[in-house]
Amino acid sequence: MARKTVIAQTREHRRTRFGRKAGLAPGTLTYLGEKRDFAIKAELFRYTNETIAHKAAIDLHEITFGQASDEVYWYHVTGVHQPDKIAMIGQQLGLHVLALEDIVHTEQRPKVDDYDTYLYLVVKMIDFDQTNQCVTTEQLSIVLCGNTLVSFIEDKGDVFEALRERLKKGNMKLRKSGADYLMYSMLDMIVDNYFVVLEKIGDQLQELEFQLLDEAVKSNQVELHRLKKELIFLRKAIWPMREVIGLLTKSDSRFLKGNTDLYLRDVYDHCVHAIDTIETYRDLTSGLMDIYLNSISNKMNMVMKTLTIIATIFIPLTFIVGIYGMNFDYMPELRVWWAYPAVWGLMIAITGGMLWYFKKKAWF
Amino acid sequence: MARKTVIAQTREHRRTRFGRKAGLAPGTLTYLGEKRDFAIKAELFRYTNETIAHKAAIDLHEITFGQASDEVYWYHVTGVHQPDKIAMIGQQLGLHVLALEDIVHTEQRPKVDDYDTYLYLVVKMIDFDQTNQCVTTEQLSIVLCGNTLVSFIEDKGDVFEALRERLKKGNMKLRKSGADYLMYSMLDMIVDNYFVVLEKIGDQLQELEFQLLDEAVKSNQVELHRLKKELIFLRKAIWPMREVIGLLTKSDSRFLKGNTDLYLRDVYDHCVHAIDTIETYRDLTSGLMDIYLNSISNKMNMVMKTLTIIATIFIPLTFIVGIYGMNFDYMPELRVWWAYPAVWGLMIAITGGMLWYFKKKAWF
Amino acid sequence: MARKTVIAQTREHRRTRFGRKAGLAPGTLTYLGEKRDFAIKAELFRYTNETIAHKAAIDLHEITFGQASDEVYWYHVTGVHQPDKIAMIGQQLGLHVLALEDIVHTEQRPKVDDYDTYLYLVVKMIDFDQTNQCVTTEQLSIVLCGNTLVSFIEDKGDVFEALRERLKKGNMKLRKSGADYLMYSMLDMIVDNYFVVLEKIGDQLQELEFQLLDEAVKSNQVELHRLKKELIFLRKAIWPMREVIGLLTKSDSRFLKGNTDLYLRDVYDHCVHAIDTIETYRDLTSGLMDIYLNSISNKMNMVMKTLTIIATIFIPLTFIVGIYGMNFDYMPELRVWWAYPAVWGLMIAITGGMLWYFKKKAWF
Amino acid sequence: MARKTVIAQTREHRRTRFGRKAGLAPGTLTYLGEKRDFAIKAELFRYTNETIAHKAAIDLHEITFGQASDEVYWYHVTGVHQPDKIAMIGQQLGLHVLALEDIVHTEQRPKVDDYDTYLYLVVKMIDFDQTNQCVTTEQLSIVLCGNTLVSFIEDKGDVFEALRERLKKGNMKLRKSGADYLMYSMLDMIVDNYFVVLEKIGDQLQELEFQLLDEAVKSNQVELHRLKKELIFLRKAIWPMREVIGLLTKSDSRFLKGNTDLYLRDVYDHCVHAIDTIETYRDLTSGLMDIYLNSISNKMNMVMKTLTIIATIFIPLTFIVGIYGMNFDYMPELRVWWAYPAVWGLMIAITGGMLWYFKKKAWF
Amino acid sequence: MARKTVIAQTREHRRTRFGRKAGLAPGTLTYLGEKRDFAIKAELFRYTNETIAHKAAIDLHEITFGQASDEVYWYHVTGVHQPDKIAMIGQQLGLHVLALEDIVHTEQRPKVDDYDTYLYLVVKMIDFDQTNQCVTTEQLSIVLCGNTLVSFIEDKGDVFEALRERLKKGNMKLRKSGADYLMYSMLDMIVDNYFVVLEKIGDQLQELEFQLLDEAVKSNQVELHRLKKELIFLRKAIWPMREVIGLLTKSDSRFLKGNTDLYLRDVYDHCVHAIDTIETYRDLTSGLMDIYLNSISNKMNMVMKTLTIIATIFIPLTFIVGIYGMNFDYMPELRVWWAYPAVWGLMIAITGGMLWYFKKKAWF
Repeated sequence: MARKTVIAQTREHRRTRFGRKAGLAPGTLTYLGEKRDFAIKAELFRYTNETIAHKAAIDLHEITFGQASDEVYWYHVTGVHQPDKIAMIGQQLGLHVLALEDIVHTEQRPKVDDYDTYLYLVVKMIDFDQTNQCVTTEQLSIVLCGNTLVSFIEDKGDVFEALRERLKKGNMKLRKSGADYLMYSMLDMIVDNYFVVLEKIGDQLQELEFQLLDEAVKSNQVELHRLKKELIFLRKAIWPMREVIGLLTKSDSRFLKGNTDLYLRDVYDHCVHAIDTIETYRDLTSGLMDIYLNSISNKMNMVMKTLTIIATIFIPLTFIVGIYGMNFDYMPELRVWWAYPAVWGLMIAITGGMLWYFKKKAWF
Repeated sequence: MARKTVIAQTREHRRTRFGRKAGLAPGTLTYLGEKRDFAIKAELFRYTNETIAHKAAIDLHEITFGQASDEVYWYHVTGVHQPDKIAMIGQQLGLHVLALEDIVHTEQRPKVDDYDTYLYLVVKMIDFDQTNQCVTTEQLSIVLCGNTLVSFIEDKGDVFEALRERLKKGNMKLRKSGADYLMYSMLDMIVDNYFVVLEKIGDQLQELEFQLLDEAVKSNQVELHRLKKELIFLRKAIWPMREVIGLLTKSDSRFLKGNTDLYLRDVYDHCVHAIDTIETYRDLTSGLMDIYLNSISNKMNMVMKTLTIIATIFIPLTFIVGIYGMNFDYMPELRVWWAYPAVWGLMIAITGGMLWYFKKKAWF
Repeated sequence: MARKTVIAQTREHRRTRFGRKAGLAPGTLTYLGEKRDFAIKAELFRYTNETIAHKAAIDLHEITFGQASDEVYWYHVTGVHQPDKIAMIGQQLGLHVLALEDIVHTEQRPKVDDYDTYLYLVVKMIDFDQTNQCVTTEQLSIVLCGNTLVSFIEDKGDVFEALRERLKKGNMKLRKSGADYLMYSMLDMIVDNYFVVLEKIGDQLQELEFQLLDEAVKSNQVELHRLKKELIFLRKAIWPMREVIGLLTKSDSRFLKGNTDLYLRDVYDHCVHAIDTIETYRDLTSGLMDIYLNSISNKMNMVMKTLTIIATIFIPLTFIVGIYGMNFDYMPELRVWWAYPAVWGLMIAITGGMLWYFKKKAWF
Repeated sequence: MARKTVIAQTREHRRTRFGRKAGLAPGTLTYLGEKRDFAIKAELFRYTNETIAHKAAIDLHEITFGQASDEVYWYHVTGVHQPDKIAMIGQQLGLHVLALEDIVHTEQRPKVDDYDTYLYLVVKMIDFDQTNQCVTTEQLSIVLCGNTLVSFIEDKGDVFEALRERLKKGNMKLRKSGADYLMYSMLDMIVDNYFVVLEKIGDQLQELEFQLLDEAVKSNQVELHRLKKELIFLRKAIWPMREVIGLLTKSDSRFLKGNTDLYLRDVYDHCVHAIDTIETYRDLTSGLMDIYLNSISNKMNMVMKTLTIIATIFIPLTFIVGIYGMNFDYMPELRVWWAYPAVWGLMIAITGGMLWYFKKKAWF
Repeated sequence: MARKTVIAQTREHRRTRFGRKAGLAPGTLTYLGEKRDFAIKAELFRYTNETIAHKAAIDLHEITFGQASDEVYWYHVTGVHQPDKIAMIGQQLGLHVLALEDIVHTEQRPKVDDYDTYLYLVVKMIDFDQTNQCVTTEQLSIVLCGNTLVSFIEDKGDVFEALRERLKKGNMKLRKSGADYLMYSMLDMIVDNYFVVLEKIGDQLQELEFQLLDEAVKSNQVELHRLKKELIFLRKAIWPMREVIGLLTKSDSRFLKGNTDLYLRDVYDHCVHAIDTIETYRDLTSGLMDIYLNSISNKMNMVMKTLTIIATIFIPLTFIVGIYGMNFDYMPELRVWWAYPAVWGLMIAITGGMLWYFKKKAWF
């Protein structure tokens, strides 16, 4: 009951969402995602190959383009659920109203837009929620302009912890390169994470296969449906990623320096590999569905055979004993002493004959 | 019975429709849509950034191109079921006979035609009819020529109420831009509305999924079929929209000024997203079909198992009691006092053995 | 029996057809279609905007190209089953042997061939045969050269009656334009007729859907199979039409004058729309198949449930009455007066318990 | 048993085949096809428009390019199972080692290779084996160089008998044209033969459909499977043919003179038509599968209904007669004279009621 | 039990794999494949047409580019599970960090990368494991730079034994050509081996088909599922191979000399043929699935028919004998001497009638 109420409320909430947005002017910032109540915050990394400065929490007013220094600036904004603050940041950066709308509207399709002076990118981060055993997606928006990169994520906690540590460690290509390489590093991590999630799903598929080949139970079908649904949603999220990264590599963009496009092509290959894997898994699930149905049907057939064997043996026998239960005055068989054993003999012969027939037909 | 009559009439009506049209000269205006009996009417918005004039009802003769002023003119015509009046408007605007035909023929495929001096566009507005719980489509034709936009819709009531209010409010990009931006605003609203409809279908799919995972009933299949059909028709309507808007953005059209193409690309992305969502929902419905069939088959199997268990237990027992109902003169068992309890014992043993066997086989 | 004979004969007839053709030199004229026994005949329309002359039957020798006048000549040949006469016409017109072969070989795929001095076109006319309730196709070949158009159809009776009347009426675009516009008018009529046929199929699908949602009977499946087959054949006929008309519009053909390509693009759009509709109907038929199968399976399940309910109630009862039909000497129950009503009580209790159980399980 | 042995041997034979080839140097000639034991032989046609010479059997050493005369040379080699002889011919003609390998390796995919001085072509001849009622394929390799054409086939007997006769008859386009037109004539015959085979399959499908709509038997499924498999293999053979001929027509090949490309485009159209037909037949087979399954399931349902009707009528009746077979001392009903007819009345009433119920439910 | 433990461990092992990689810097070498414990080793072939030197085991430090001589150098490295050693080789060769990462990361998608001074290639070797009756894949990386080729494989034992022997034999095209032809020879062998594996699968499919047409057993489905899965994985491995070799042939690469591209096009054709074969086999497996399901369902139907025949014959008979087992005082039939034989006559008549009915309905 409780679950249904939750669903009903979720539905109520969502029903009004798009309805609210549909009539608004393009570029109006309306947050339509899950409700969140923490304050939007930002952190800043400033680094060259030699120096690095990390401010864990900066004022949102500090986020600007156009630093003349040769440092790389990475502003990482956590939370997009306060449209006014995002609008403020947008004004400071001089972002187009459509880009701002896309940052806030978290059910965006992955895409890349080239706004002359800056590059705008939307991608999907995918993670596996251990507690609910399901796949979650989060939207990451990246704005790249010269030596500055501004990234926006929806919620606290991200997959970039390792990136921060590599930044601090220094003396690596990451520190020697510009903001475009930083962007590549983020995309690389996101796509690498796809494989972590796909591996989890692959393991679950394999486990399910072993169970099904052993013996199918009803819960397998629910599990299989869950996996199929997750693959459908993963596919919806990762297919456009391929286009996005493909566009980035193909366009001779002003935003990519040095051989960053070589690195991006590598991410592109991984992305294609992830899609191949998803398609393969989808093929596998349909194979598992076949096995499941077969297993269920085999069990049913065994039940039916049992019924048939029992019934076909005993129904004729019951008829025979019925005959000699009749009360006719003139039934000469009833009077001879060997009739009763003879009936037993007949019935044993019939049973034997039937068992032999079923054996021959390989019914059991 | 009543419903069938309605259907028969509808069919009769439709059967003659295309038959009527097929033999006519190209460009002959014949209205083939639903019967409507209100008079075609038109409204006019004239605006610059500073001034705006709204006439809720104008004479159809006033609709013309070629105003020399720098105002934007938006003529919005409601109703296309009076071919003569549409023909008259067409003559005033100098429209090609094929464009006129497309305006009146409301089962048109979405498309864009570039007639040198003006641009002609057909799109589909989609809405969710709350009373009949079904998706409805309406055709919108747009003619764009310089600073004038003429739009034609089929029926009273439209999705542009919010647009009118934004126009009146003023001091927004909409008022500062030309008729091409107005066209974009209309397309944006229409595509945004697709998501409202898709969200409704998504909610119904989710609700159906919960019901099916709980317990399938026969009505679920009718519901599932309805959703599948709606997705098929939505797909047919939205796929060509993508081509249309894609053509608009790609062509270096004389009709798009400033950065309106940037805005249209945004609408294009949303359109692609809507198509992705439809395909995802179609995948989901086939998954739900599997669950439904499985659930039905599971229920049936349970029924069969019950029958089998009852029958396989009682058929042998009935045989045994039949034996001792025979009337042979010489049946020694009948005469000893412990025979009756012994038969009971035998029967209880058989029942116990069978129950143990079924338990082992996990039949219940 | 009679039907089978017909089929066998048809098969015999067809088996030899391609076998006969396979070994022949390319360009050998062999008629492979249905047997027809009327004499090939031709009619002629000569018109300018001002004048028109119609000869209902002309000598086949009169069919030639190269009239120097500014009149449009339309030769309409009915029947292609006399290869020698077609060959004669071909010689008069100077047609390539491959074009002639295509005119006679009526199972051609729609195509357009540009033979430098003339254009050759094969399309499929589709009609709905009211008496046999099935779709029929007929091949139309068009040869276009300057101001002359020669068309070939297979059988008497065509869809161009309306065209003839429009020609005679005069003072329309058709009379003012050249032979290319005449060709467009013919294509437009043919494609318009596709919608008439598709509408018939759509109506039948809808009727079938109502029946199936009501109650499925065996004949529905035969009907559904018939509709599926017709859609398969329509698809095979209409898909290449799209290519053909697409080629006509794209190529900057010497054969199209003025804005005839604009008109052809309109036909092209209709053709694409027809294909969309076919695909949509195919999706619908597979949905109807699901409903049919489900309905059949639901009926079967109801039958099985009835059996199960009857059997599970009466089999145990029969066992009980069997017990007291046994003839043991020592069965104390048989001797007490309340035993018989007690057995009745027991049996009523068992029946009630079972009915309650079935009710709870929602079996009926 | 015998059949299985044959299969096992076939398998043994084939297993070693590719294993044998896999490790060899590219260009090593190894024959992997069926075992054949006749000696490779060749015939020669030399012709101009005026003269023709036919040698039914020539020495393999005579096969060379480079005849300076204006005659057309057609060397037709029967058998490719003696790699050394093929190698010898290859040396005489100066063929590339890869082309030679392709001639001998008879499981080649159809393709066309342009080796600067000559054109190499592999295509598949398809025939219908009347005795085994199955489709057979044979590989044809064509080497075209100037006025010389060398063709290689696998086995005795070919589809070119008609071609030879046309050659001898003379005074046709074939004799007036070069070796490229001869090549076209061969391709044309091969593709025409596809339709002969497809027509056979079409007839079998139609016959099967009539049988299935009449009554399905188990053997239908084996037949349907056979047709499906043949369509799969035909598809695999004909699809690449389309590419091959398409490449020939598109490339401005030095090897095609005059308007031979026009003729090849005609063959290309036929090839596309053949593919359309195969796809249509595949759609039909899946429709027939549905009918078959339905028919089987309908028969089964009828069986089940019979069982249910018999059982549900007689099980309650048997219970009733069981009641009055009990041996209780105090059963007052047994003593009244009208009880027996009353029981009969009751049983007739029950039977009638049930029959009425089944009738109402339309069970029979 | 044991098997499940193994699976659990495998899973545990794999789960950590991608998790380990996901957070690392791009270009970090981490081996994620199966655990191996032999030391990485290398062998060297140096050859011209005249001379050849083979060192079975060289020091890894000796692997370098840039030998000025006109000899071809082939370094063949066995094992990539020691990242530090691979890194060392990479440094000596001046390989890009991404290429190195791809060498070590053995679950790479086949691809080709052009790093200006050298060409990097990843392909999949496929083999059939006789002991486990399954398909295995191994990754081969090739680095090609001028006259030097370095190849990396995962495990001991490879498919190149025949290549080594051909190298040693000398006086063949292989010895006369450069390192690019060596690369082609390796690709040719790998693709040839695909056919060996596909042939094995084809044989197993054929054997399965014979079994299924004979009689289906439950194990067939497991076998069929295994074959389907192998085809899915083969497809995933071979599809990208086509792209890779296609890219190699199309690009006017600096790395291909002479007519090596001609040879590569041949490999490309074989690759396409392999893909065709896989698709054909996939179609076949779905056909076999249909046969299996049908066969199972036919067996079940036979079981049901047996039950129905037995039950429908004996249930009415049992009812009749039940009637005359009733104990009513007034049952006149019981008293006449011919009643008992008359009942027998009735029962025989009923049985005969039913058998005749079943025969007519073709139930057995």
